[in-house]
Amino acid sequence: MSAVAKDIIDKTRSLRSEVTQPFTASKRVYVKGSRDDLRVPMREIQLQSTRSTSGLERNPPVTVYDTAGPYQDPDTQIDLLNGLTPLRQSWIEERQDTEHLSGPSSRFGQDRESDPALAPLRFEHIRAPRRARAGANVTQMHYARRGIITPEMEFVAIRENCRLQELRETYAGAGYLKNRHPGQSFGAMLPEEVTAEFVRQEIAAGRAIIPNNINHPESEPMIIGRNFRVKINANIGNSAVTSSIAEEVEKMVWSTRWGADTIMDLSTGKNIHETREWILRNSPVPIGTVPIYQALEKVDGKAEELTWEIFRDTLIEQAEQGVDYFTIHAGVRLQYVPLTADRLTGIVSRGGSIMAKWCLAHHQESFLYTHFEDICEIMKAYDVAFSLGDGLRPGCLADANDAAQFGELETLGELTQIAWKHDCQVMIEGPGHVPMQLIKENMDKELKDCFEAPFYTLGPLTTDIAPGYDHITSAIGAAQIGWYGTAMLCYVTPKEHLGLPDKDDVRDGIVTYKIAAHAADLAKGHPGAQVRDNALSKARFEFRWEDQFNLALDPERARDFHDQTLPKEGHKAAHFCSMCGPNFCSMKITQDVRDYAEQKKIDAADALNKGMQEKAAEFRDKGAEIYHES
Amino acid sequence: MSAVAKDIIDKTRSLRSEVTQPFTASKRVYVKGSRDDLRVPMREIQLQSTRSTSGLERNPPVTVYDTAGPYQDPDTQIDLLNGLTPLRQSWIEERQDTEHLSGPSSRFGQDRESDPALAPLRFEHIRAPRRARAGANVTQMHYARRGIITPEMEFVAIRENCRLQELRETYAGAGYLKNRHPGQSFGAMLPEEVTAEFVRQEIAAGRAIIPNNINHPESEPMIIGRNFRVKINANIGNSAVTSSIAEEVEKMVWSTRWGADTIMDLSTGKNIHETREWILRNSPVPIGTVPIYQALEKVDGKAEELTWEIFRDTLIEQAEQGVDYFTIHAGVRLQYVPLTADRLTGIVSRGGSIMAKWCLAHHQESFLYTHFEDICEIMKAYDVAFSLGDGLRPGCLADANDAAQFGELETLGELTQIAWKHDCQVMIEGPGHVPMQLIKENMDKELKDCFEAPFYTLGPLTTDIAPGYDHITSAIGAAQIGWYGTAMLCYVTPKEHLGLPDKDDVRDGIVTYKIAAHAADLAKGHPGAQVRDNALSKARFEFRWEDQFNLALDPERARDFHDQTLPKEGHKAAHFCSMCGPNFCSMKITQDVRDYAEQKKIDAADALNKGMQEKAAEFRDKGAEIYHES
Repeated sequence: MSAVAKDIIDKTRSLRSEVTQPFTASKRVYVKGSRDDLRVPMREIQLQSTRSTSGLERNPPVTVYDTAGPYQDPDTQIDLLNGLTPLRQSWIEERQDTEHLSGPSSRFGQDRESDPALAPLRFEHIRAPRRARAGANVTQMHYARRGIITPEMEFVAIRENCRLQELRETYAGAGYLKNRHPGQSFGAMLPEEVTAEFVRQEIAAGRAIIPNNINHPESEPMIIGRNFRVKINANIGNSAVTSSIAEEVEKMVWSTRWGADTIMDLSTGKNIHETREWILRNSPVPIGTVPIYQALEKVDGKAEELTWEIFRDTLIEQAEQGVDYFTIHAGVRLQYVPLTADRLTGIVSRGGSIMAKWCLAHHQESFLYTHFEDICEIMKAYDVAFSLGDGLRPGCLADANDAAQFGELETLGELTQIAWKHDCQVMIEGPGHVPMQLIKENMDKELKDCFEAPFYTLGPLTTDIAPGYDHITSAIGAAQIGWYGTAMLCYVTPKEHLGLPDKDDVRDGIVTYKIAAHAADLAKGHPGAQVRDNALSKARFEFRWEDQFNLALDPERARDFHDQTLPKEGHKAAHFCSMCGPNFCSMKITQDVRDYAEQKKIDAADALNKGMQEKAAEFRDKGAEIYHES
Repeated sequence: MSAVAKDIIDKTRSLRSEVTQPFTASKRVYVKGSRDDLRVPMREIQLQSTRSTSGLERNPPVTVYDTAGPYQDPDTQIDLLNGLTPLRQSWIEERQDTEHLSGPSSRFGQDRESDPALAPLRFEHIRAPRRARAGANVTQMHYARRGIITPEMEFVAIRENCRLQELRETYAGAGYLKNRHPGQSFGAMLPEEVTAEFVRQEIAAGRAIIPNNINHPESEPMIIGRNFRVKINANIGNSAVTSSIAEEVEKMVWSTRWGADTIMDLSTGKNIHETREWILRNSPVPIGTVPIYQALEKVDGKAEELTWEIFRDTLIEQAEQGVDYFTIHAGVRLQYVPLTADRLTGIVSRGGSIMAKWCLAHHQESFLYTHFEDICEIMKAYDVAFSLGDGLRPGCLADANDAAQFGELETLGELTQIAWKHDCQVMIEGPGHVPMQLIKENMDKELKDCFEAPFYTLGPLTTDIAPGYDHITSAIGAAQIGWYGTAMLCYVTPKEHLGLPDKDDVRDGIVTYKIAAHAADLAKGHPGAQVRDNALSKARFEFRWEDQFNLALDPERARDFHDQTLPKEGHKAAHFCSMCGPNFCSMKITQDVRDYAEQKKIDAADALNKGMQEKAAEFRDKGAEIYHES
């Protein structure tokens, strides 16, 4: 057994005890689609009943979107050494537009495969890659434009609904649908119910993407578009300085537990090919990469030595492993580079600075730009989605919304149209560091210049003065840009600008971004978003402490914080909390007020009744005749 | 020595080592005003020089607003047993409109003073209280409306500027003023330089307040108004369940270290009179309270037994101790109470629920409402500012912006005008739990209905589903409402809804709210806000790690996070960071790009020069005559 495999086995043990531990009172459920192998996973949170003077009132369970894949399914045996079940494989095969290759067609992939020194690092069950047949186009956009609803589209439609229709029909009285506020959607059109046909239309129009490489059949389809739930991405990846393969796999699983919708593997160190294989084979969510990072490794970090051939080989290498989307910095045009010279912090995107250096060294447009149609040919042969990178994004507030940034954005719009000509799926990356009053301009310009292709932003950070808290400086911006229309938010951890995130940082970053994305859904008026808020608020008001924890984005932290002040088990059933103590509690007083008001109503009814009885007696006294004869 | 004094002495020791430890590379400076005893404290952060090919370039220090009072002045001897120096005492005395009382005039104050059993708890150097002379009005608003610029007003003017004018004149080239983005201020008018006369006008108009009770002369004046820097408040306070006097004093000092502009003492347990005395005598920032909490203690928690007399005695008791602002829930009118009956979470404000219960029990308007002018008489005799409480604020998203909440807000507007008739200073409290798309309506309505009196909001939380992270759910809302015009943001800690905050939670809550307030200042276009962002971004770009830490809102956490990944001291001078490693770094590449671009310019100039030399040689060859004779 290889060294990495041993390490992974150790991790598997810890996975069982912590990383994949089921959430208390949560149950994995599957909603079936039109075919038996279309089963959409969700998490159902069971709640306690409400005790009132009139007896027990049932609180129906709350169904929430679940990104954790098989790791939260107690009926699935997890084996990281074998990878996950390829649930999409039959869907891909049925389309009969792909072929199995005998092995990797990239030169680098072949070299790694045949290098015996890598055996200790290698995932042991590598499948031969699949590719579109000659002349075929296997993107979801291609199918959508031809009017085909794929199982992937139906899957995301069911997933987006999260059983809202069932809730409306069966549990309308439970209070979860109470006082749903109208949203302000800035042009987004959120349907009351997502149908597979709606998904198809959105993908055909380029307003949404389903990133799912045919070589990553283990992934559960998810959709990125502003007419759907706002998604979040978590970055992982080893670097030259720190972290191992097993750690990265663990972080990937950990990320899906807390709610990462996609994961980017930003590894820059050695063995990133092998690391990626381990991650892909075990990831239930789409994986994105920045291929130029690896290409740079292949030329020993010398940007000017990069060539189209090396880059092309890298794209094919990664596409055949199953990467679902590629960040491609093709918008860094030669003319924009000098526009950054007077910036306070120049070019801070790694990909952007590599390409800028290349452009200057060769004094010509980059091979990403000149070979863009060649890239499209590769993307459509595997259905890798474009994530057009913002290589010139601002690295500080002072540089926000400048000519370099917006020039590149316009070029990304041109490239979007080229990609769409090939039916390639596209999203657009956005900044970065932007003060609040300049955020909306970014969104508006992206929608206009990039023809409503989904926007995928990093933050933005709304101030530069809080290293150590940049998950927060950026969540403020992320919530806003999500509200304005950004489809996916790339998380920022507390370690941003300072170091590599550990597991705790990943959890903090993800939960923070789930908050931002959810706040955005609420503000846009997503039809199902307020259900969980209402259920949790009701639990809070009724002192159902366990339900309050279980409905929380991070039940474990909520429970832990409560127990720090009131550790006794009995306190969780108590009708008071630590802020007010047992003798005084505003929520208790409110209940008294409500009871009093109720009593008032009863009294009033009694009084009315009594009044009527008096009237009735008077009526009887007068002879009890309806018509007094005149 | 009393038990509490011993406890306090222990705390004093720990204060020295942690709570009041100076920030690295920071220097306490004082900016003098028009008189010798008007010295405004600020924190000056010293920076390293930039090393470049052309030698060392000096980075001027950055001056930041400092709330820590004498605790960050190494020349001051802190003695919690004696309290702080009463720096405003002579200003108050000079006005000759106050008189010293022989002792507390409240009955409760007298009882506590004469109770020997309280000796072990009591602060030992209680001053006799001061009160306005008969017929006098000692509020800052009263002076302002008579055209008087007080030392307090001059103090806050200097404080708000934070030496921006000096920076402009002396260090204009340092890059700190670079690319200042225009703000979007929604009607706020932020002057390029705050003058004492501007402060006076704002206070006279009711758009700003300086909360500074004449019995709290230890406090350093600060201003709350939307045409000034956005401020934050931190809540402390013991409860029946936990925490001691010494702990609360420590939390108060700790809060000012991290940037709390005011502190509310929300104690509800026993001995809150004595706790408050300790806090006030040692607090450099204004202290606010909710007097109804203590009044409720006096009637053993039975809201319906509260009377105007008990409440009045409590106001005087606290005013004579020096509380700077009172939350008064006078807007909870009888007619609004039934409007809350159908809410998902009823009345969640403690003060609101007490008053609602009282109103229902007596079926009449509360004594806060009926005696409002009597309250004004008390407020103006000590200059206690009103913080008109939002007793009917929503406790969850579902209840946001409803008839009960907005009805109360309208009543707060009516009460504002009554208070202003008495020249009493007023701010208005706001919610609570509000989804993003409904936040602006709160601000707009407050400005309109309350005639631009400063708004002081709790969050608002933008979702209910993240207990354990409510500092973040609420910072998202706080940054927005601060941008829209809220003058002070009441912090929320990670323990909100779950337990009482410990020191770490207080720090997290404060830093999070400093971020929100600063993001709001930036978005409004505050003239000096971007200076610190630019200085930090420049340090980041130039790999001046120590400067990046020292300029951070929380230097200790930034340093700690960095050291977790790269602990070696040498790495802090290294031109790379842990994200990219030593061989590849986007910032390094950018520098190369810049150097390259610079070299290109030089080359171009050389070429031009060479071309000119060739022309010159040709010119010489041709005979070096300017005019060829024809």
